[in-house]
Amino acid sequence: MIYLDNAATTFPKSESMLARMDEVNRNLAVNAGRGSYKAARQADEIIANTREKLLRLANANGVADIFFTSSATIAFNQIIGGIEWKNTDVVYVSPFEHNAVMRTLHFWQKKFEFSIQVLPYKSEVAGNNKYHFIDLDAVKFQFAKNKPDYVFMSYVSNVTGYILPIEKIGTLAKSVGGKVIVDGAQAFGLVPVNFKTMPIDLLVFAGHKTLYGPFGVAGFIKTKEFSLSQIFAGGTGSDSLNLDMPNTGSSRYEVGSENIVAIAGLEAALDELVQANVYENEKELTKLLTTGLQGIKNVYTYLPSEDSHIGIVSFNIGGYMASEVGQIMDEDFDIAVRTGYHCAPLIHDYINDKSFVGTVRASVGKFTTEKDIKLFLQAIQELTEEV
Amino acid sequence: MIYLDNAATTFPKSESMLARMDEVNRNLAVNAGRGSYKAARQADEIIANTREKLLRLANANGVADIFFTSSATIAFNQIIGGIEWKNTDVVYVSPFEHNAVMRTLHFWQKKFEFSIQVLPYKSEVAGNNKYHFIDLDAVKFQFAKNKPDYVFMSYVSNVTGYILPIEKIGTLAKSVGGKVIVDGAQAFGLVPVNFKTMPIDLLVFAGHKTLYGPFGVAGFIKTKEFSLSQIFAGGTGSDSLNLDMPNTGSSRYEVGSENIVAIAGLEAALDELVQANVYENEKELTKLLTTGLQGIKNVYTYLPSEDSHIGIVSFNIGGYMASEVGQIMDEDFDIAVRTGYHCAPLIHDYINDKSFVGTVRASVGKFTTEKDIKLFLQAIQELTEEV
Repeated sequence: MIYLDNAATTFPKSESMLARMDEVNRNLAVNAGRGSYKAARQADEIIANTREKLLRLANANGVADIFFTSSATIAFNQIIGGIEWKNTDVVYVSPFEHNAVMRTLHFWQKKFEFSIQVLPYKSEVAGNNKYHFIDLDAVKFQFAKNKPDYVFMSYVSNVTGYILPIEKIGTLAKSVGGKVIVDGAQAFGLVPVNFKTMPIDLLVFAGHKTLYGPFGVAGFIKTKEFSLSQIFAGGTGSDSLNLDMPNTGSSRYEVGSENIVAIAGLEAALDELVQANVYENEKELTKLLTTGLQGIKNVYTYLPSEDSHIGIVSFNIGGYMASEVGQIMDEDFDIAVRTGYHCAPLIHDYINDKSFVGTVRASVGKFTTEKDIKLFLQAIQELTEEV
Repeated sequence: MIYLDNAATTFPKSESMLARMDEVNRNLAVNAGRGSYKAARQADEIIANTREKLLRLANANGVADIFFTSSATIAFNQIIGGIEWKNTDVVYVSPFEHNAVMRTLHFWQKKFEFSIQVLPYKSEVAGNNKYHFIDLDAVKFQFAKNKPDYVFMSYVSNVTGYILPIEKIGTLAKSVGGKVIVDGAQAFGLVPVNFKTMPIDLLVFAGHKTLYGPFGVAGFIKTKEFSLSQIFAGGTGSDSLNLDMPNTGSSRYEVGSENIVAIAGLEAALDELVQANVYENEKELTKLLTTGLQGIKNVYTYLPSEDSHIGIVSFNIGGYMASEVGQIMDEDFDIAVRTGYHCAPLIHDYINDKSFVGTVRASVGKFTTEKDIKLFLQAIQELTEEV
């Protein structure tokens, strides 16, 4: 199988991560933070070290805290559910947001009646491509007219690989008192995150995507000033007779047993992550993909500009539904791509892919090779020749 | 290490489960339910088969649906948060409930002001033991006086190993229209669960406890008649343009990527689970433990009657705080036990262990041997002789 669905989950995983997970599953899969015996303390240490390494990767030590969740989706439920909403609040979302953000905002909007606006966006048609980008001048104008209380932005679009200008938008938002919440599911570990120099109040990450960790661990990094109500309750291994949740420490937002095996896997993945190398490899492969696809007749691409593009390429082929292309790639070429709307509800109004019922999405990772891309491009070439 | 903290998480895991998790992590750790390629479809099948096996274990096929969560705690947050509460609702809880239930009820009670009552309970002192049991006559009387809308019961107490008479209490509750919600974290896979013959509306399970599965997978089985609101939103890999969550199927309560590795591990664990054998082994070891402890001078036990007792034994030693006993067991004997209140806030008012700051809890699993218990009893004997 040629795997080009890395935006869904990076695959395969490294040998060292796989070996570490198996080792911890065999020897240390006990209940961390609760037992008073050696193995439980070792499990605690793994968790503390992993937190530390993630904070370091985000340059967030001292200014922000980190909380683990089982998935980025659960993190967004905790965050959006934990904001102390007022019905006068103005929320901006980028048009690239995932349903982990959009459906969750929609759910809480029904209760609290805050308003949701979409960050202004532009697109330009050039040949068979539709370039797209956030319109920063229009953002500035909008923010002046209607001050943001919260801005939700995907750092990297899971549909088009567009690297959003989160620093510029974040700076504009913060200059008028808005909070900046970044969906880093497709970004953390791949592009720079720096809590000390960038205008980020909260970053959500998914262990199993650009961090190259396993399923079952995700979380959020939150500045100490950003206060969130607790919306989950449960055992924390501490102060058990108290029916209220603890107000400090990681237990504030972490309930139930920690998934020590997944956390140890993430730690192993972090130990071998060299962000610059992954970025360079993905950058090259992305260019190879876009250039290749643009050279094939009858292929329609949805690209950002080259300097704000990484890892993910969406396209369609005239005469085929997106899902048909995916099926042929699977059946005839053993190539794994994703097709459809990719859980991103808004962007399709802008890129105009609904006649294809979404896009064909090819996404690369650190184990993708030039050869994979060449075989994929050949397959697409063959397919278009059949039309 | 002699591991007697199986109530926290069963450990070690079987070779076949460990091998299966590693295999799936290497070959099939892709995003199930979303990709249209072979590996994603194989991942879907694993999930469907695991659901089927759990429904079969609960004899729930056709009458109930199963939903996966990342932990039993998150399941209780979803369930208690999803009940359509009225301020006139009357909730009964057993005195054995865990904070996954108690803190979560307390949290939602602040919003909806329903009332919470504790099921009547009795205890009898006999020598150095305090026997304890639910007082069924008093329950009947209470239910007549103040009709239950919801009854929350641990099937097996995580503090004392008491098997609650859930059928009798459930029948009483249902005869007056109450819904019966069972915390099966210490029970499912060990004691009988049968949705077709037992008065259960909803059962919560934890993969990593009595099912002998891994961390990262848990869930609930819910009769088709019991309706719950959705409180989590997010991507479901379906109907992506719709900002409302799907109203049918497992996506109704399952958001984000499924943890295929954990689910495959649980399936492997289910494939080798022979409930009767595990029960018989635990029953014998429990008897060995209780008889042994009751024969040691200065040991105070908190036991249910023998015919309603499985797997977990709580005790204290005169002259020692519970935590001191745990520390000595770890340091001098390399024996892992849990000490303290075990995230169960109510029961300590009844068993009266607060002068010891909780109990010492020894809990067995399918890999515990007679030799483990004998060495543990020797260690406790030695310790008491030092006083």
